[in-house]
Amino acid sequence: MSILTVGTMAFDSIETPFGKAEKVIGGACTYISWAASYWYSPIHLVSIIGRDFPQSEVKALEDRGVSMEGLVRRTDMDSFFWAGKYHPDMNNRDTLTTDLNVLAEFDPILPRSYVSSRFIMLGNLTPAIQMSVLNQLDGNQAVIILDTMNFWMDIAMPELKEVLKRVNVLTINDEEARQLSGERSLVRAAQKIHEMGPEYLVIKKGEHGALLFYKDQIFFAPGMPMADVIDPTGAGDSFAGGMIGYLARTGEISFKNMKTALIYGSTMASFCVEDFSLQKLRNLSQDEIHQRIRQFEMLSSFDVNELPVKNN
Amino acid sequence: MSILTVGTMAFDSIETPFGKAEKVIGGACTYISWAASYWYSPIHLVSIIGRDFPQSEVKALEDRGVSMEGLVRRTDMDSFFWAGKYHPDMNNRDTLTTDLNVLAEFDPILPRSYVSSRFIMLGNLTPAIQMSVLNQLDGNQAVIILDTMNFWMDIAMPELKEVLKRVNVLTINDEEARQLSGERSLVRAAQKIHEMGPEYLVIKKGEHGALLFYKDQIFFAPGMPMADVIDPTGAGDSFAGGMIGYLARTGEISFKNMKTALIYGSTMASFCVEDFSLQKLRNLSQDEIHQRIRQFEMLSSFDVNELPVKNN
Repeated sequence: MSILTVGTMAFDSIETPFGKAEKVIGGACTYISWAASYWYSPIHLVSIIGRDFPQSEVKALEDRGVSMEGLVRRTDMDSFFWAGKYHPDMNNRDTLTTDLNVLAEFDPILPRSYVSSRFIMLGNLTPAIQMSVLNQLDGNQAVIILDTMNFWMDIAMPELKEVLKRVNVLTINDEEARQLSGERSLVRAAQKIHEMGPEYLVIKKGEHGALLFYKDQIFFAPGMPMADVIDPTGAGDSFAGGMIGYLARTGEISFKNMKTALIYGSTMASFCVEDFSLQKLRNLSQDEIHQRIRQFEMLSSFDVNELPVKNN
Repeated sequence: MSILTVGTMAFDSIETPFGKAEKVIGGACTYISWAASYWYSPIHLVSIIGRDFPQSEVKALEDRGVSMEGLVRRTDMDSFFWAGKYHPDMNNRDTLTTDLNVLAEFDPILPRSYVSSRFIMLGNLTPAIQMSVLNQLDGNQAVIILDTMNFWMDIAMPELKEVLKRVNVLTINDEEARQLSGERSLVRAAQKIHEMGPEYLVIKKGEHGALLFYKDQIFFAPGMPMADVIDPTGAGDSFAGGMIGYLARTGEISFKNMKTALIYGSTMASFCVEDFSLQKLRNLSQDEIHQRIRQFEMLSSFDVNELPVKNN
């Protein structure tokens, strides 16, 4: 039993209305692994880094139960680098720089010990790479979660659709769900996306929360209103990490358990945005995590009261 | 004990991606009264209509327990008329026409039987009119809910702030909360708005649901994902109507009861958007209303599971 997580490990330079962070640690795989590591180990990591990525960061993840057998370090190139600037509303951002560097060479080979991983989290990467990973697995997985984005829908839709046939859970945002399905209504979008393969669809709406669609059932995990959102970078990946960590820990793939998994995801994402990079995710105590989970419960719960309608 | 509702009764011409409706019945007071009438009577209505407003519509509301003693009909003028076109995303709209007509003459005089109304719903109108209504009440109200919009913040902020000192519940959207408070974070916006007067703040986010702020507590009522949103016009007023109707019916003003009131509001709003004008709100059965309330419960509820964090 183990988690497999595939994705980038990178440097980010970020500007938000609250400040700047220059060349800080980022990457989907990094956020996923940190968030998941609170709930489960071993985590089998598959990623690629360059000569500039600090070994101390690799070590810190190893210390949390993350296996580095699937990590490639290229000593002739730099790590993937992304620079972006957030709009004042923090919901939108402009990409200033994307230096692929080592990522252009990424062709993941799964170590033999990884191929029977049960809980698979494929971070946002080219559909071709995601497919290559799926092809190396032993076919005996409990759940395969896939993250993707509009960019791949624009330039690699046929490949993406092939991958979708083989995943159980798709995580995308609302506009991506509309693009993928051609439907404005998220309910209709979910119906079409289910037909493409994923029986679970998670639609991430940032500060507005996340929707889970399964058959004809819907669950909504609210976004936690925060006094200060410092940096949204990595929130979606922290969400995915919390989700896969909870699923692996509890071992049950059902609509009921997926709902709680979304709350775990939302919890980890809510911590992520409270500071730049992994600052907040590195040192969470059990108390503050449990308190945040209870805040989600208080945010969502109400007394149902079915009053008879008035006869006029 | 009674509800007092003050606002427009009007004609709307609406264009959405799903079709057009020409000169159909609209107006805040109309939607509020219809939505509230499922839960409570009497409803004391205060509004103004022109020669063109059908008497059958007045009669239909009377039949549902709405008192028309406070309705003025001007036989020398037409009713308030609004025309708008929704963007493809249905979250934004352009106003094409605003003919104030009778609304320019609106100076509501409360009938003597109205001044002791306990549950007050002030629809979106000039702050001066809202203040005039408050000045006519006997001062013995259980709750005063006020709806307003960015337009009044732009042109009449000082008057609006005077009114706010005297209301218990303010309903506005997220951008309006930011404009009113000068704060980007809704948590910080709520703190400032509480200081302006309203102990309860309801932030309406359309399809993304509604937030309730009270002291340091927050509740989130999700938006119900709908297969088809035909026309969002009146959703906010139907929400307000469901809320005040529930509060009047149950008679309790508390955070706990306000949470359920938001669900009643969201329920009525979710029906409103399913058709143009009041089509859907006119003929709801108890069964379909209760079923929708249960859908909200299913949408929001999850098993809380506080797992111990892993020690590494």
